[in-house]
Formats: sequence, structure tokens, C-alpha cells
Amino acid sequence: MEKYKKNSESSYTLGATVTFELLKVAPRVVEKVYYSPDIIRNFSFLELNTICQRENIPIEESSKAFRLLSPKENCFVIGKFKKYAGVVTDSARHIVLVNPMNAGNLGTIMRTALALGYEDLCLVLPCADPFAPETIRASMGAIFSLKVQTFESFSAYREKFPQRNLYAFMTDAKATIDKTEFVSPYSLIFGNEAQGLDRNFHDISNSVVIPFSDKVDSLNLSVAAAIGMFTAANQKK
Amino acid sequence: MEKYKKNSESSYTLGATVTFELLKVAPRVVEKVYYSPDIIRNFSFLELNTICQRENIPIEESSKAFRLLSPKENCFVIGKFKKYAGVVTDSARHIVLVNPMNAGNLGTIMRTALALGYEDLCLVLPCADPFAPETIRASMGAIFSLKVQTFESFSAYREKFPQRNLYAFMTDAKATIDKTEFVSPYSLIFGNEAQGLDRNFHDISNSVVIPFSDKVDSLNLSVAAAIGMFTAANQKK
Repeated sequence: MEKYKKNSESSYTLGATVTFELLKVAPRVVEKVYYSPDIIRNFSFLELNTICQRENIPIEESSKAFRLLSPKENCFVIGKFKKYAGVVTDSARHIVLVNPMNAGNLGTIMRTALALGYEDLCLVLPCADPFAPETIRASMGAIFSLKVQTFESFSAYREKFPQRNLYAFMTDAKATIDKTEFVSPYSLIFGNEAQGLDRNFHDISNSVVIPFSDKVDSLNLSVAAAIGMFTAANQKK
Repeated sequence: MEKYKKNSESSYTLGATVTFELLKVAPRVVEKVYYSPDIIRNFSFLELNTICQRENIPIEESSKAFRLLSPKENCFVIGKFKKYAGVVTDSARHIVLVNPMNAGNLGTIMRTALALGYEDLCLVLPCADPFAPETIRASMGAIFSLKVQTFESFSAYREKFPQRNLYAFMTDAKATIDKTEFVSPYSLIFGNEAQGLDRNFHDISNSVVIPFSDKVDSLNLSVAAAIGMFTAANQKK
């Protein structure tokens, strides 16, 4: 057991909610489950043991795991799992995040994506670590239901998927989101928290703006992504 | 100078962006500006001094202020200001947050509200502190452009504003957001992060659901609020 690092082969789910999600959706990758000596031995605890037994996953009481791994006090269950690489599907709708650097935003976008029916997430490096415990927690475990694939650059993404309709969200786009028709198979592209997307996205994609007041500089990334995903998914044809 | 507490009469903006926003929008409440000995003396620094001089605000170099108040390393400007009570307008669109407990969510909702043209925010107690430095930072300074009023209970809000059309966002509402007509003057109501709104909102308001996949339990509060605000503001009549 060791503190999580970006290059670790395994990561951790901190807390009961995300650990149950991991066990439900991706039991094959789970290596071990730890529970705190302070856990309440209620129905959920029994269920946790039942699942681990059924899936042949070792489960162990440990106070050390919690001291080492969990900064929060209200965490009583930890799952240890082997990290894995996802592969997105060409026919699906894609969310493409170019250099998202904040783990909380990344996790929130995963949760929103799954909620709104987007299951294919493409990350352009460098970016926040999708498997960091903080990202997983913000995703509420949604990460385990998504296909998450990373790309060295946006060009690498485009070479792999040349036939898609690209919609790049930019504050200085000409087309507003309500006037944009999202044609499948499409990719919704969002930039970095501080810089957004660089200017050449105007040329290589349909650029789209979510209109906002001149009293703010921009929308929060996870808010912009939510509005973009919701609008595209609910567009009247 | 003292660490911020909920009952302090003054609070602090941590960082240049939010401090400039404070100075621009609400110079009257500013008591003092501190800058770090490590600040870069560029054009922005000159501008900061010019504004303080013009508004008669004391400005002082201090390393102590940063040691005491700022947990982050990349903070070089702090504003100290007197907290104030806002009063919302009956004719305006209201965002009503019932017991929001997370400062990051509250700040993000402030930023989104201002961006989408909502300037009246009602908070039902207990709730996260709107003037906590963490909330202000997440709001990117939007708080200073909003009217933020707190209420002891939702009943107190309703007694004060009896004539409004209420739309309560609930995961088990019958009407979906795309089938809902938002009629002015309206109030968009969102519940607590963990519990949402309690059942009696079905009776006292129009309840509305943002449809989401059964693979997640709910949307993040600031995401749900963003989708609700955006949809209501952009509804085709």
C-alpha cells in the first residue's frame, strides 16, 4: 500500500459511494477493499462483504490504509484497483477536453457526461489525472462507466477519428449555441480552464459560443461543458 | 488583521482577479489592500495603486497578511472589505438556493448566475457563507455584482415575495425542463447537495426535472443550476 502517484499502476476509491460504484461496474479491476475500524456494521457493510466474497476480492480491516490514503475524516471504505486504458467508439458522441488541468472539473464533467448520455471521453495531454482519487471522487464513480482515452495532441485525436463533426466551444466564436445544429457523429470540444482553445480551432471546426454577460470573463469549465452537452443532447431536430 | 471567521465584520478577496473585481464594482466597502513583497511591479500593480489612490483606499506591503490569510502560493494581492447585506428586487428573476453547504458550489453558481443574466440570489439558511474567501474566489468576484439576500427559511422567502412563479428543481418531478414554460417573475429553486429539496415543494411550486441517466444518482448542484438557468433564460417564447 502506498500513497497514490500519477505513475502508480493502481489507484484508490475513497469512500463508500465510489467504492460501491467501482465494485458494481468494474469488479474485474478491483485488487482489494479496505474498511476502517470505525465503520458502522450495518446493512451496507454486509453488502460490501457479500460483493467481495462473490467477486473473490480480498477485504481487510485496516486503520493504516485510512491514515495513509484518506485526507477526509468521513471515509470508511477504500477500494484499490488496477488502472486501465479505455478506448472510445467512433460511432458515439465524444466529449473532447483539451488540457483540462483541474481534477475537480474533470471529475464533475465525467459525472455530467454520464448523466446526459455521453459515454466516450477523450483527453488531450497534458491534463489532470483521470485516475487520481480526487478526480474519481468528483466523478462520483462515473469514471468506471465511461470509456476514457487519452491522446498526445489534438492532431493525434483527429488523425484517429478523421470523419467527425467537430464543435469547439470558444468565447469568441461567431455562431451561438442556440443557432448551431449538432450533426452526428459529433465531438464537443472544450479547452483549458485558463486559456480556452487556441485560435486555430476556428479553422478546423465549427466554433460555438455560449452567450454570457460582459460582467464576467468566462464560464467555469464544468459549467460550460454541462450547458454544451445538455443543449446538444436535447436539440429539437 | 485576523483570520476570517463567519461572524467577522470584514472579509478578504484573495488574489488579483477578485480584488480588482471588488475595487471595480464595490470600492465603497473596501477597507484596505495588501500586496506581497513578491509581487511583480508591472502595469497591473501600477493600476492597483492608481485605483486605491483615486478611491482613497490604504494600500500596504505586507508579508504577514499573506502568511495569515492565504493558503495558496500564487496569491500576491489581498483586499479587505466590510461585509454588507444585499436586498433582492421583486421584479427580477430570482435564483433561490435552499441550504447549499459547499462554498465552491455556491461561488460557481454566483459566477454562472451573473454570466447568464441573473443578478438576484436568495439563500435559505443554513448555508455556506457567501462572504467566505473560498466562496468569493470560486465566484471569481461575481458576488460583488449580485444582490445576495439571506432568509431564515423558505417560508420567510415566500412571505416576503408571495406573487412569484416558483420552479423547484427536483429529481422526481413530473414535468421535464424542456416541457416547462418559465413565466416571469420567476424563481428557480435548487436544494441542498445531498438531500435536494423536500417533498412539499411538489405542492407549493411547479416542480421540474432535468432528465438524466439512471447510471448516476443526480447531477452536481452547480451543474443542475447552470442547466436550469441557461434553459429558462434562453427559452423560445
